[in-house]
Amino acid sequence: MSEKIPVIPESYDPATVELCSFHDSVPGFLDGKDTPRAYLERCLEVIEAREPSIKAFVVTDVEAARKAADLATERYNSGAPLSRIDGMPFAVKDLFKTADFPTELNSPLLEGERHRFDSAHAYAMRKGGAVILGKTTLPELGSGQPAETRNPFDLERSPGGSSSGSAASVGAGMLPVAIGSQGRGSVLRPASFCGNVALKPTFGAVHSGGMLWRSPSYSTIGIHSSNITDCWRTAWQIAQTVGGDPGHPGLFGEADITAAKPKRLIRLDTLGWAITESSIQERFEECLSQLEREGVEIITRQSNAKVKAFEQALTTIPEFQPDLAAWEMQWPALLVRDRGRDQINERLVSRFEFGEQMSLDEYRVTLNALNQLRAVFAKLEGVADGFITLPTPTMPPIGNATGDSVYGDPSSCLDAPAWNIPLLKESGLPLGIQLLGNKHQDYALGRIGQWMMETFLR
Amino acid sequence: MSEKIPVIPESYDPATVELCSFHDSVPGFLDGKDTPRAYLERCLEVIEAREPSIKAFVVTDVEAARKAADLATERYNSGAPLSRIDGMPFAVKDLFKTADFPTELNSPLLEGERHRFDSAHAYAMRKGGAVILGKTTLPELGSGQPAETRNPFDLERSPGGSSSGSAASVGAGMLPVAIGSQGRGSVLRPASFCGNVALKPTFGAVHSGGMLWRSPSYSTIGIHSSNITDCWRTAWQIAQTVGGDPGHPGLFGEADITAAKPKRLIRLDTLGWAITESSIQERFEECLSQLEREGVEIITRQSNAKVKAFEQALTTIPEFQPDLAAWEMQWPALLVRDRGRDQINERLVSRFEFGEQMSLDEYRVTLNALNQLRAVFAKLEGVADGFITLPTPTMPPIGNATGDSVYGDPSSCLDAPAWNIPLLKESGLPLGIQLLGNKHQDYALGRIGQWMMETFLR
Repeated sequence: MSEKIPVIPESYDPATVELCSFHDSVPGFLDGKDTPRAYLERCLEVIEAREPSIKAFVVTDVEAARKAADLATERYNSGAPLSRIDGMPFAVKDLFKTADFPTELNSPLLEGERHRFDSAHAYAMRKGGAVILGKTTLPELGSGQPAETRNPFDLERSPGGSSSGSAASVGAGMLPVAIGSQGRGSVLRPASFCGNVALKPTFGAVHSGGMLWRSPSYSTIGIHSSNITDCWRTAWQIAQTVGGDPGHPGLFGEADITAAKPKRLIRLDTLGWAITESSIQERFEECLSQLEREGVEIITRQSNAKVKAFEQALTTIPEFQPDLAAWEMQWPALLVRDRGRDQINERLVSRFEFGEQMSLDEYRVTLNALNQLRAVFAKLEGVADGFITLPTPTMPPIGNATGDSVYGDPSSCLDAPAWNIPLLKESGLPLGIQLLGNKHQDYALGRIGQWMMETFLR
Repeated sequence: MSEKIPVIPESYDPATVELCSFHDSVPGFLDGKDTPRAYLERCLEVIEAREPSIKAFVVTDVEAARKAADLATERYNSGAPLSRIDGMPFAVKDLFKTADFPTELNSPLLEGERHRFDSAHAYAMRKGGAVILGKTTLPELGSGQPAETRNPFDLERSPGGSSSGSAASVGAGMLPVAIGSQGRGSVLRPASFCGNVALKPTFGAVHSGGMLWRSPSYSTIGIHSSNITDCWRTAWQIAQTVGGDPGHPGLFGEADITAAKPKRLIRLDTLGWAITESSIQERFEECLSQLEREGVEIITRQSNAKVKAFEQALTTIPEFQPDLAAWEMQWPALLVRDRGRDQINERLVSRFEFGEQMSLDEYRVTLNALNQLRAVFAKLEGVADGFITLPTPTMPPIGNATGDSVYGDPSSCLDAPAWNIPLLKESGLPLGIQLLGNKHQDYALGRIGQWMMETFLR
């Protein structure tokens, strides 16, 4: 076992933690001092050491990955990599179909289900030379019985969900990038728990084709990474190759991302603040103070009437979101239920069947409520460079429970881009901040995140 | 062979043609004089007689259909049908997945491809008791090599495409309803060629989940039927059960449809008129004259400046539609190409590869052009009760070519509802008129179609 394998630190520190970044290895690939195959082997060494306790993967194909990495090595050797992510190992949450692995959504009812074609993102990433290593865990059907996956910084704790395995694999230093998805808080929360950078893009901005379980209508792909550059390069590569979802203009921004200091940020409390652990509140307030010391203006509900109206509007989410999701989940959830009702978590079944009892008219009421919220949000365009809030009200729970998605709902409902930036620590564990923006501000927000990391973590 | 089996008439007449309607059998099911099983057997008798020459089906499962029809019979016998379409036999275009059949898109590269779950519409229809009989033909991958399917009114001619088998099965009197899909003219044109009623709903109004080949972004499910009532009841049942596509408010309107005379209709020429056969132009002009004699005002580009501007805007479609479709088709089309380039029609491959060479920026240009067209269209809201135009510039071609989709592009590009109403005849063959409307006017347009059929075909 090489000395490079990260061990669980006594106390996590975002400034010193060593995860697995890819972009800084590329110069070595180009000048022949390093190779994608050697990079993969380093990842595999970490996986061998840590996977038995972390349990991030459902399935891997190491030999296929080695072959793909060798081909990437040849391309770099001849000075012609296919893209910025050529040779980059990655894994995919097991609710996206891929050509080489089954897609089982952690349900016995989908055991061995094969689709034989890649999801859009996997197709685009492979076309750019990236190396798929396997599929990662999630709770049963996205929100039922949690996976056995453990938090890489404390094995007694949950990595969060539903992108459990993707977040844990990145947090454990196994991989530079893993693909997740978010319908509520399924990217932001596990990213915070596992010390990941993560992007939940503007709805439709990164092609979500091949996501086999998507509800509500605002579900998106998510990208987990150890750093903003690899995260962005991955999102950019997918969007440049296959676009966003059909009918959407796709991801805006340059190929590479550099730091940019914001002038103004809107602090959002959302419904999360009132139920946030006080130690987390303290870390967040300290972060805001740091920002102010750097000259960033923080706008709040107290200082701005539009923000106040928006915070008020956000409190309506629990009134419509569960119904909206339950209706939209019917297909294909009820088909899975019909295959074996007693093999699904009871709470899930009752949610599916709540949707089954709803009417189309009742669904329209929820859509109207959603559209009202979006209209209030739209009025904030241009008020600041972005929004800052938390990604989670708690630290990673001890045991299996994956945490509370309250801080994920706003970006999901609003079709808005959101990043988790692993900037803070609490109780020796990672704690992120969430940057949220108006539609298509994915790139601008990433630049702010980069500035915050460069400014506060050195 | 029963005397009830329709034979190919010497000369088609929309006023006397006897296709296979379902709704008027329901009273017999309820009072015990008829049963869904007997109804199915009558369909099977027609299929046995005509399918060898029509070739509308890819695959059927007669025994499974008989079992389902028997269950429906029991429900009617106990006075408790599940829905207005309980016991109704139907078939599904072979680009939607269903639990019981492979989904092959008429490509050797997808032979035996199984998905094990029903498409949303098939799930909803079965839940309402409808009886799936099989899958229907289409050209290779929706737009390559045409299927061998023949026009039920002239075996030397094409049934149109891409919903070839669905249109032909209804036109041959084999089934009351069959499911198709439209990305350009794939529902309206074959419906006209085969004397079907057909609804191409407002984009997103009827759940399209499980459509495995959908591009461009405005693709919708389509419903082929012998009559407006069965067509509407089917669309309504799907939307009430699973809704429209997630995020869309679904189909508006009552459960049943009655005739309604319009006050004003806008005549649309589109790019189709200039290339329309003169005999078809004559039939259409006669139809407009009939409408005027009934007191319906016909608004034209000559009489209304907004209509003139809209007709002008429609001429931009060929400038952006092919590029838009090519970009959006990349996923999953290029995955199929990668499986066996030489087993795909060359013209199709070159279209796929044209998309592969495009950039995201070029795609955005096409989206902007599309949005400009939609903005001009929106200005026509409220000017009339709907639009009237043709569904095809030619009669069904002799041989395999499926015809020209020029009259299908507007409703597809505009996310607008459109009906084919089999009102006319020419050269002893069916010819439809197209009713097109603003978004969510599906029901109002169907009522106009019903009024036209009741007024002009008796």
